[in-house]
Amino acid sequence: MELTTFFYCFDHLGVAVFAISGTLLAFRKSLDGVGAIVLATVTAVGGGTTRDLILGLPVFWVYDTYYLLTILVAVALTIIWLRYKAYINERTLLIADAVGVAFFTVMGALKAADAGFSPLICIVMGTMTACFGGMLRDVLAQERPMILKGELYATACIIGGAVFILLVPYSQPVAIIVGGLTTLLIRLGAIRWHWSLVVFRDHDGTR
Amino acid sequence: MELTTFFYCFDHLGVAVFAISGTLLAFRKSLDGVGAIVLATVTAVGGGTTRDLILGLPVFWVYDTYYLLTILVAVALTIIWLRYKAYINERTLLIADAVGVAFFTVMGALKAADAGFSPLICIVMGTMTACFGGMLRDVLAQERPMILKGELYATACIIGGAVFILLVPYSQPVAIIVGGLTTLLIRLGAIRWHWSLVVFRDHDGTR
Amino acid sequence: MELTTFFYCFDHLGVAVFAISGTLLAFRKSLDGVGAIVLATVTAVGGGTTRDLILGLPVFWVYDTYYLLTILVAVALTIIWLRYKAYINERTLLIADAVGVAFFTVMGALKAADAGFSPLICIVMGTMTACFGGMLRDVLAQERPMILKGELYATACIIGGAVFILLVPYSQPVAIIVGGLTTLLIRLGAIRWHWSLVVFRDHDGTR
Repeated sequence: MELTTFFYCFDHLGVAVFAISGTLLAFRKSLDGVGAIVLATVTAVGGGTTRDLILGLPVFWVYDTYYLLTILVAVALTIIWLRYKAYINERTLLIADAVGVAFFTVMGALKAADAGFSPLICIVMGTMTACFGGMLRDVLAQERPMILKGELYATACIIGGAVFILLVPYSQPVAIIVGGLTTLLIRLGAIRWHWSLVVFRDHDGTR
Repeated sequence: MELTTFFYCFDHLGVAVFAISGTLLAFRKSLDGVGAIVLATVTAVGGGTTRDLILGLPVFWVYDTYYLLTILVAVALTIIWLRYKAYINERTLLIADAVGVAFFTVMGALKAADAGFSPLICIVMGTMTACFGGMLRDVLAQERPMILKGELYATACIIGGAVFILLVPYSQPVAIIVGGLTTLLIRLGAIRWHWSLVVFRDHDGTR
Repeated sequence: MELTTFFYCFDHLGVAVFAISGTLLAFRKSLDGVGAIVLATVTAVGGGTTRDLILGLPVFWVYDTYYLLTILVAVALTIIWLRYKAYINERTLLIADAVGVAFFTVMGALKAADAGFSPLICIVMGTMTACFGGMLRDVLAQERPMILKGELYATACIIGGAVFILLVPYSQPVAIIVGGLTTLLIRLGAIRWHWSLVVFRDHDGTR
């Protein structure tokens, strides 16, 4: 029971962090208030919604409207904060996104594992939960999707998800924390030092 | 029975208007005939499909193929009309879209209410039904999504949906007409006078 | 039994070909290795996933993880091949895409027909299975979607799907082969000779 509450708060934290990242991008794009809410909501629930639809589970935010409330509060606080600070650093957005990605990787994999899916599907679902919200955010805002920019975006999710799956038979809380930290540290390191997983030789595009 | 028929026609009208808006954009983008059908179909059924998937209901156009017929007829008539008129006004597209948005806001909220969902979810579903088709249309056509352009796009849906939810316990037809007109008038006013809900201070982008 | 195995291999071939087309685009866009896997996966499973969700069927790759394995192998082989060849022709990508489209049109229509849906819905589902993966690929990579470029993209699917539906009561294998070849030849001819289905008169955009 206590543990369930802990996971639940964790899930809301992930939603809030992604809502913040959506609001920050809305600020950079000079959207209006409702535009910010739309972009924040799509970012925060896009990944989990896709996961639930593909697994055939009820979509999480439809039956628990506290998630939408969390998004509204996160958007409102971010807007207030941005009024006192006339600019944001590109990096602020990247870090908010990285924290959200770490939360959602483990919570996505956990939900699939709880529903009894195979380890490979759990890792795919963790990655999808973590990546699809941000992907929708970037596509809507006509930005190049972060997930395709290199810097180990999906890589961090896949490795963190695998760590989670390896540890979860022993202890759920440990698996969540170690899996999440693995994702976060790989992604932050990749942002800081521009790590990438180059596989194609240099070339000058098509033709 | 008679009332159900009325709602059903209303729903087809919304589909037709969105199909027209997709065809108009296809014209502006110089797509070919099947490209126009694809864009019109995505616009017309995108919102309702997303709504039905998220609510776990059967997708409306799969079991009633008259919707696809309505789209084909709307596309054909629009193409014929466009052959007699060598250009379209930017505003024509905005108004067609606004009428579709008004129809779909109330029909989306009505479907969710009929299925017994909470008022908040009904408003979200009205907004999603109204906004997702046009969002997909704009993303596919590589246009900036109208929903993020300000001018009270989602705002009009949220307010119209709330009006609908407040009135629906008294009379469904009144709720549909007043809710739809609320959405339409807010959106048309916003297009005409460039209303917006500014929340961010002026800034020059990132950095 | 033997026939089912044949269809199953056919389905995996379609997935592999679309995974190759995603990897080729990843190469042109200079993505990293995991970016290539993401783009290849979205291209290969995007259409079938949308089809299964809309028809209310279990999503095919969740319960048969060999599909994901097929994608990984196809991506790996394509990357190795690209290391020995410093450039790719625009046409290589178009042809890989056309082959995938032909496979998926018939397999999508077949799955809908097997589940008992009406002929019109089967044709729509064949077209959607064939077109949505490539559409997601192009949207994510910020390319103009091939489906909107003319050259009979969706047209080839609709005609091939109709041929399949007409022949399937007589013989499934014949329907699959003739339907698939119809789609492939129309699309290849359209690419080669720039066929298009022009319906709009010349105009200079909006206004």
